[in-house]
Amino acid sequence: MRILGIDPGYGIVGFGIIDTHRDNAVVDFGVIETPKEDTFPVRLQRIEESLRVLMERYQPEEVAIEELFYCKNQTTVIPVAEARGVIVLTAKKYCDRIFEYTPMQIKQALTGNGRAEKKQMQFMVKNILGLEKIPKPDDAADALAIALCHSQINPMLNDNML
Amino acid sequence: MRILGIDPGYGIVGFGIIDTHRDNAVVDFGVIETPKEDTFPVRLQRIEESLRVLMERYQPEEVAIEELFYCKNQTTVIPVAEARGVIVLTAKKYCDRIFEYTPMQIKQALTGNGRAEKKQMQFMVKNILGLEKIPKPDDAADALAIALCHSQINPMLNDNML
Repeated sequence: MRILGIDPGYGIVGFGIIDTHRDNAVVDFGVIETPKEDTFPVRLQRIEESLRVLMERYQPEEVAIEELFYCKNQTTVIPVAEARGVIVLTAKKYCDRIFEYTPMQIKQALTGNGRAEKKQMQFMVKNILGLEKIPKPDDAADALAIALCHSQINPMLNDNML
Repeated sequence: MRILGIDPGYGIVGFGIIDTHRDNAVVDFGVIETPKEDTFPVRLQRIEESLRVLMERYQPEEVAIEELFYCKNQTTVIPVAEARGVIVLTAKKYCDRIFEYTPMQIKQALTGNGRAEKKQMQFMVKNILGLEKIPKPDDAADALAIALCHSQINPMLNDNML
């Protein structure tokens, strides 16, 4: 099964695609970036357009998106949530199976520790996926972690569907 | 000029359309409602579809949307912001001139008091628009207030464009 993981944002959206039929092989990863010079509506349009291209190119069967919390970073949570709304809507147009996970669930799934540090998470992403280097930038590694988290949760017990 | 005011939300989105060429005549007002039974992505889709219909039917030249603050209502601000992202994106596809106003700016514009109470705001909406009754539901009255706020700000001094 092909899974697209998404780390939401409005300046940078991380994405990572893995294929569980091929032992969690990495299909692609990277970031969608939106220029600071653009107005906020235009940045949302760029996110939508770039995500459309990814959904059409890779046709993931399931999409996993990180859940937001207002306590995480209060100064930017509103525009990030606005971008996340656009991401959820756009993904839904191509894929009926959308899931969300908290940062703690993602850390727990990859390291067994819900409070794992970033370095430890990146190390696990590299190892589980059999990569030579830690994927860059960080947002892409985070997105691969979200996809991996989703792949490791028993589908029969998964109540994280959006 | 035709102005669409929007009070963002994910359960209820208020809308109000006024025409400044006809002395702020009300063109239409109401709400987009999304059923609780629907999943969140489906609710976002319903908001997008209903807003598309409004944009196509009324073709507003300018759109004014309330700005969100995380201090206002922390438990629901994230899904409201997600819906607002969808609203901004959808409006942008039909209209290049999108503006945002804080609740305080809207209250100030209508009553001269940035801390005016809801009843006072609704009374002003009814009076300025020459209506017989206060528009219902409240979200529609709020959206008309946003449209009126935008109509009263000098276009030469307006730095609220999104």
